[in-house]
Amino acid sequence: MRLRNNPNAMDILKENEHLVVLDPEKHKGKWKELFNNSNPIFIEVGMGKGDFIYGNAQTYPNINFIGIERYPSVLAAAVNKINKAQTLSNLRVIKYDASLLEEIFAYGEIAKLFLNFSDPWPKSRHAKRRLTSPQFLDIYRKVLNQDALIEFKTDNRLLFEYSLMTFNAYPMKIDYVSLDLHNSAENESNIQTEYERKFSAFGPIYKAIVRY
Amino acid sequence: MRLRNNPNAMDILKENEHLVVLDPEKHKGKWKELFNNSNPIFIEVGMGKGDFIYGNAQTYPNINFIGIERYPSVLAAAVNKINKAQTLSNLRVIKYDASLLEEIFAYGEIAKLFLNFSDPWPKSRHAKRRLTSPQFLDIYRKVLNQDALIEFKTDNRLLFEYSLMTFNAYPMKIDYVSLDLHNSAENESNIQTEYERKFSAFGPIYKAIVRY
Repeated sequence: MRLRNNPNAMDILKENEHLVVLDPEKHKGKWKELFNNSNPIFIEVGMGKGDFIYGNAQTYPNINFIGIERYPSVLAAAVNKINKAQTLSNLRVIKYDASLLEEIFAYGEIAKLFLNFSDPWPKSRHAKRRLTSPQFLDIYRKVLNQDALIEFKTDNRLLFEYSLMTFNAYPMKIDYVSLDLHNSAENESNIQTEYERKFSAFGPIYKAIVRY
Repeated sequence: MRLRNNPNAMDILKENEHLVVLDPEKHKGKWKELFNNSNPIFIEVGMGKGDFIYGNAQTYPNINFIGIERYPSVLAAAVNKINKAQTLSNLRVIKYDASLLEEIFAYGEIAKLFLNFSDPWPKSRHAKRRLTSPQFLDIYRKVLNQDALIEFKTDNRLLFEYSLMTFNAYPMKIDYVSLDLHNSAENESNIQTEYERKFSAFGPIYKAIVRY
């Protein structure tokens, strides 16, 4: 997700250290200490404006959530939004690039990874940049624990087709597929992103759950 | 596909030996002799009224096609339809049950298998009967050659979700997935079934191409 550049974005992040972790590399292998408990840690790569990760943190207090977003303006918008709601001790956010996850997490430190409505990068020469490419699956593997799940939602048909083939070829085990999540039995527990609320009227939401 | 029972169905089949192979077991391992050439043999399991296999046989004269259908009334309807069109030397049909394919084909004798709009058998206790179940994948493997493809189309979302997970778990290699075939680049070469022409207005047609 991109937003118009906010020149105050970095200031907003720095002023909210209760929520924004500014030096994530320092916590590599030690995130339990930051959360002050041994609960599992779930991350969302590309958290956008944060509705999904906030909703999860609120619903599942015994899980720690870390939202990751590379665009400062987007993360600042999320921080402003979260600040208006109830403070949650099991939620942190980071401005970081997904390709560098192993700089901030140790092997096995993460129990689940969410990808929601990731940039489809439609040109095939940009396929490596898709967050479900084999290149990214290699990266996630370095920080996820052995039984960890990756949960992926998108409304982009071509990205989902690509992702199914990529998961199969990697190979990853595909535990679950829905080709119309909002009309599936599982939709009851679905926590929507802001994008999803806006665009699900125009076509199906696809979802897959996979593991290594 | 089921049709109202036609009491003359078996007579129709018997009267059309130029098209209907009545003793398919006799040709096991020797289908090349029947076609009098060494062209690859493609089969459709559950050919229904035959539009798809007839269209293929017409379009690809250098490939031999065998349509298989378990319901005599359905196959008789297909035979009547085909009889009204041009006779094709590269097309035969058989009344047979998919679970017994190895009785009529030798290992490696088949180069491609088509499954189109197969019965979804929606109850999970009937999952074994779905033509993309692991049980059927085991059967196809006994007659397909090493590089053979299985091409599968359906408009049934739950059957397609099930099939993707089954292919992945088997494991089979998923070469191609379309979640909306009629709006895909590949639709130009798509030969439609009679069911597909009728029902594609009501939702997407899904397609996968897989191999062992």
